[in-house]
Formats: sequence, C-alpha cells, structure tokens
Amino acid sequence: MQALTIGAREHFADRLCSAIESAGAPACVGLDPVLEKLPRAVRDAPTTDADAIEHFCMGVLEAIDGVIPAVKLQSACFERLGAPGFAVLERVANKAKTMGFIVIYDAKRGDIGVTAAHYTRAAFNVLGADAVTVNPYMGPDAIEPFLSSEYADRGVFALVRTSNPGSDAVQSHKLEDGRTVAQMIADHTATLGEANIGKSGYSNVGAVVAATKPEDATALRKRMPRQFFLVPGFGAQGGTAETVRALFNTNGQGALITASRSVIDGFEEGDADWLGAVRKAAEGFAKSLEKI
Amino acid sequence: MQALTIGAREHFADRLCSAIESAGAPACVGLDPVLEKLPRAVRDAPTTDADAIEHFCMGVLEAIDGVIPAVKLQSACFERLGAPGFAVLERVANKAKTMGFIVIYDAKRGDIGVTAAHYTRAAFNVLGADAVTVNPYMGPDAIEPFLSSEYADRGVFALVRTSNPGSDAVQSHKLEDGRTVAQMIADHTATLGEANIGKSGYSNVGAVVAATKPEDATALRKRMPRQFFLVPGFGAQGGTAETVRALFNTNGQGALITASRSVIDGFEEGDADWLGAVRKAAEGFAKSLEKI
Repeated sequence: MQALTIGAREHFADRLCSAIESAGAPACVGLDPVLEKLPRAVRDAPTTDADAIEHFCMGVLEAIDGVIPAVKLQSACFERLGAPGFAVLERVANKAKTMGFIVIYDAKRGDIGVTAAHYTRAAFNVLGADAVTVNPYMGPDAIEPFLSSEYADRGVFALVRTSNPGSDAVQSHKLEDGRTVAQMIADHTATLGEANIGKSGYSNVGAVVAATKPEDATALRKRMPRQFFLVPGFGAQGGTAETVRALFNTNGQGALITASRSVIDGFEEGDADWLGAVRKAAEGFAKSLEKI
Repeated sequence: MQALTIGAREHFADRLCSAIESAGAPACVGLDPVLEKLPRAVRDAPTTDADAIEHFCMGVLEAIDGVIPAVKLQSACFERLGAPGFAVLERVANKAKTMGFIVIYDAKRGDIGVTAAHYTRAAFNVLGADAVTVNPYMGPDAIEPFLSSEYADRGVFALVRTSNPGSDAVQSHKLEDGRTVAQMIADHTATLGEANIGKSGYSNVGAVVAATKPEDATALRKRMPRQFFLVPGFGAQGGTAETVRALFNTNGQGALITASRSVIDGFEEGDADWLGAVRKAAEGFAKSLEKI
C-alpha cells in the first residue's frame, strides 16, 4: 500500500473512499488483542505482556497489508496494561499509519470543553489517528472539539446504534416526537456533519451503526445520507452480508464493515504459521463483502 | 488522613460516607491539570511536560490533605501526554490512595463485553481507583462488567445529567412514556444498583448529576434514592450551595460536590506559595458546602 503524505491532507471521508477502492473491499480489521488468545508462539515468548501484544499487532498489520484498507485500534486492550500498553498503542498506530492504513481509534470518548480538547489531542496528535469513535450522550458540544478546523482532515464516528443486546434498553426508546433515541442521535450526527463534506459527498462525521440491528438500518441510512457508517457486529456477533446491505447507500458506498475476532483469532492455537492463517481469514472477510 | 487498608475492604459507598464524615465536607477536588495554567514555578522548571503535571498533582494532594476527602482524576489531561502521561496518572492515583483519599477515575468509559472488562481492569487494577465514571449510552450491559463480584468494594458513577449546555439536546428529550431521557437513564442506574447496597444505605452504583440543572434535581433524587450523586458544575460552571441542595437526601447525605478549576487554579500565576493558596481555596470550597 502507498503511505499517505502527512501535512496538507485530503478530507477524511475522501481518503477512506480511496483506500476502500484501492483495496477492493469496505473492510476494517479490529485490533483488539487479548493476551489469553494470542498464538502460543507469541504467548510463550519470554517477554512482557505489552511486548507480546505489540509483537502480535505488528504481525497482524503485515498479514493484512494490501487486503484490508483500515484498522480499528481498541483502546481498552492497551489501557489494561497501563503506561507500557499505551506506549504499544502509540507504536502500533504509528506503524499502521506508515504502512498506509486508515487508522480508527476506537476509544468511544465523550466529555466536554477543555476535556474533550485533551482527548482530541490524544487521538489525533499523540496517536496520529485518522478518526476516533465518540460517545454522544453528553450532547453535540461533546463532539464539536474533535471537529475543530485544526483537524479538518480527520474524522469521528458517533455511536448511534450499537451491536450489544442491552443497547435496545436505551437506544430503542421512542420519544414523544416519534423518533427513537437512536434516530434523535442520528439527526444530531447529521447536523454536526454538515459543515465539512468531502468531494466524495461524505462528511467528516460518521456514525457507528451495528450489523446486528437490521430492522433499524433503512431509517438510519435515510436520516444520515452523508455519514460513513462504521459497522460492528459482523461475523462473530452474527451480522451477515444480508444484514449489512441496507447500511450502504444505493451506490454500494458509505459503510465500512469491521471484524475483529473472526480475523485476528483466525488461527489454530499452536499454528506456527499463524500470520498466514490471519491473512487467509482477512481475505475471506474481504471476499464475503463482495456479495453485498 | 489514615490510609485505608487494601484487601477485604468495605463497600465503596460506606467508605465514601466515612471519608466525608471524617473530613467534615462532601467535597471532591478534580485534578484536571492543564499545562498552560500551572504555577509559573512549576511551568518554568526544566522538566518534561509529564514531570510538570506530576509535580503539580502531587503538590495539590499534599495541599488539600485533611481538608478534602476525595479526588477525581481527569483521564484526558494525562492521556494527552501519551504513555508518559499515563504513567503519571498511575503514580498520582497510587499516591492519592496511599494518603487515604477516595480516588475517582473520571474516564467516562463505555463499551461492551470483553472491552468493558478491559476498562474495568485499567480503572481498578492498574490505577487502583475506588470508582470510575461510566457512560450509559450503550445500555446496562456496558456498565455491568464494572460491577462484577471481583470488584464488590468499588463503585461507578453513571452519567445521568451532565453540566454542559449541549446536554439538554439529548438528556432533556421526553419519551413517549413521559420520562426524559435522563430519567430513563436514572431508572436503569437505580436498577443496576439494587444488587449491592452498603450499610450506609447507598449503592455501589452512583450517578453524575450536575449542579447546573437544578430544575431536574428533585425528580432525579426521587428516582435514585440509593445513588450517591457525583455533582460537577459547582463554582466555575455556576452551581451554588442553593442549586445543589436538592441533590442531597433529606438527611443531608448522598452527594459529593466536585470543584476543579476554582481550587487547583486558586493561586496568582507568580505566587511562590501556590500550595498555600490551593489549600486556602480548598478550605473555602469545603466551607461553602457547610451552608447546604
């Protein structure tokens, strides 16, 4: 893959569209490394937990290079190791950027004012991420700092409709005005995104919309025509090519499907060629999206 | 202050009640260190940014010792410095625990399943915090991992009603059933908290309810009689003794008022005795709560 030039960069959504076109699949692999699930060869090496996680993530990046256009780094998996884990996160993000991946920092941050501005710096300056997932519960002013002009070439994905069973207990409630809570958040997301639309027609403000809630897909797509959807829940959580189809726009664009466990755990425990197995799993994932 | 013994510890809410009684004020100081606002003496020292933040935080802990029972560590302020910032956060949390403060990790994390379990480890094992703030948008299952039996002596504060102006655009919406979104989240919070109530009558699940929304206080207090309220927005953001009164239970218990900037920036820029000034500001803050 061609590394992107840092500096006067293109709009986030345009870069994402190009990367997807170049790889040939709207696919994102989640780097959610869990110690207990690492290949035996990595786990048994005489290193620290942080070193093992780093070795694994760097290997996965090499394995999926050229097959998958985007990676999603799960902050929690690194934070649980404290400062050494955070240092690994920085190095993995840096390597992914250098290799030309679109890097999404899955941090689900949400706070206000100067605090949100600090999170923005952590995501975009410290890690150099292209985009970050954000939590909308505190209101639009919790998201605005991520959209400041200094970061016009970066993006956010606001949580709108998440893949977990318990999400219905909040996001499916109906408001007096007939919208669900998720639809109300969708409308805020669309409004926030109006100010910065790329040549591709997509905004720098995207939305997390799960593959596991197909009954909500059409209404949310309609409310957010210019939002790129980051779609969790594919594969291990039950989402299929069938359930994600309605999340795309009619031209087959506008969604990025993520898979984690089904790719990064795609090896037998003792497999010496675990990297080959991960690559094969990534290729299978990319291929499964051709049917959409 | 007497350091608390780690091990078979008491219920979080009981420890919080004891700490408040011992200090004589339901007060929490927010450690939200911002480089540009540090005392000149700290800022001008020939050290790294992370060292300056650490020096400042350690000083503030000494300055407020014996006056304030609890501290709230703002994760974003440390994360913006990357791994060295996270290392400072660990050391500040450790020192605060050793000194006997109740330590609240203000991280507003919210995610699901194994990811939430990782955040739980980061908060309770890596940092050793007594409690963590959590975001409820993803549903009750995003909070449950923080309440597992392994952490029966720890607590969470779920965001219910936040202090920022934009929060109304989400939290004040009315549902079909007549509740506001914040009241719906309050009901989930109360339900989650039923399983683990301390001798004090309070749950390990508390709620963030802002001082800046007094019109909502009575209804939320009624829906969450067993929740400790963590109350931001006092002082700098406009909350007063008057506006927070309704957040307490009728016996004057059940709320912890937080102040950050009004205490930790309580010095003149060039003041050599900035620690004395911070202590005075903390004493003033504690005293202002006597009127409640």
